[in-house]
Amino acid sequence: MTAGESDVSLIAETPEPPYYAVIFTSLMSDDPEGYEAMAERMLALAKERSGFLGLESAREAVGLTVSYWRDLEAIASWKQDIDHRYAQRLGRERWYAAYRTRIARVEREYGR
Amino acid sequence: MTAGESDVSLIAETPEPPYYAVIFTSLMSDDPEGYEAMAERMLALAKERSGFLGLESAREAVGLTVSYWRDLEAIASWKQDIDHRYAQRLGRERWYAAYRTRIARVEREYGR
Repeated sequence: MTAGESDVSLIAETPEPPYYAVIFTSLMSDDPEGYEAMAERMLALAKERSGFLGLESAREAVGLTVSYWRDLEAIASWKQDIDHRYAQRLGRERWYAAYRTRIARVEREYGR
Repeated sequence: MTAGESDVSLIAETPEPPYYAVIFTSLMSDDPEGYEAMAERMLALAKERSGFLGLESAREAVGLTVSYWRDLEAIASWKQDIDHRYAQRLGRERWYAAYRTRIARVEREYGR
C-alpha cells in the first residue's frame, strides 16, 4: 500500500446518506494502561459487525472517535456486544476522566 | 480557571437533543501556511453566531472537528458568512489534501 492509499482511508468512505454516526468524545484519565491494545481490539471487532460503515479518530487534548453505521439497530447491537461491554466498563472505571457519546443521523455529506 | 475547569470545556456542553452536528474530517496538504491563524479566527467567529452550541477538535493523521448547532438554519447561515466563505476557499485550494463534511441530526446523548 502506498502512503497515498493509506491516507485516503483515514477519511471514511461512507455511502449516500442517510446513515448514522456515533460521536464519542473523551478525556483520558491518568491510568491509560491497557487502553491502546483494547482500542485496537475494539476497532477490529467493530469492522466485522454488520452495518459498520467506517471510523475516523484523532486525539490531542481531547479524543474524538466518529464511527459510522447503517442504522440504529447496528449501533444498538454493537453496544450490547459482550466484549464491547467489557471495554465500556473499563473505560468508565479506569481510562476516561470524562466522555460524551452522541448518536446522530447523517443527512448530508459533501467534500472531495 | 483551574486545569480541571479548562479540561471540561474540551467536551462541548450541549443541550438536550435534538440539535445538529457538523462533522468535518480533513487531511492537510503540504502547505499549511496561514492555516492555524485562520482556524483560530474562524472559531472565534463561529462562537459569536446565533445557534452555535459548541465545538470539539483534534488532529493526528486525520483532523476531526465537530461543531454543534441549534438547527440547520444556523449551519446554513454560518456556511454563507463572507469571512467563512473566504476561509473555505483557501481550505479547498491550499490547506486540505482531502476533506469531508457531514451534517447530522443528534438524536441521543449520554456520558459523564
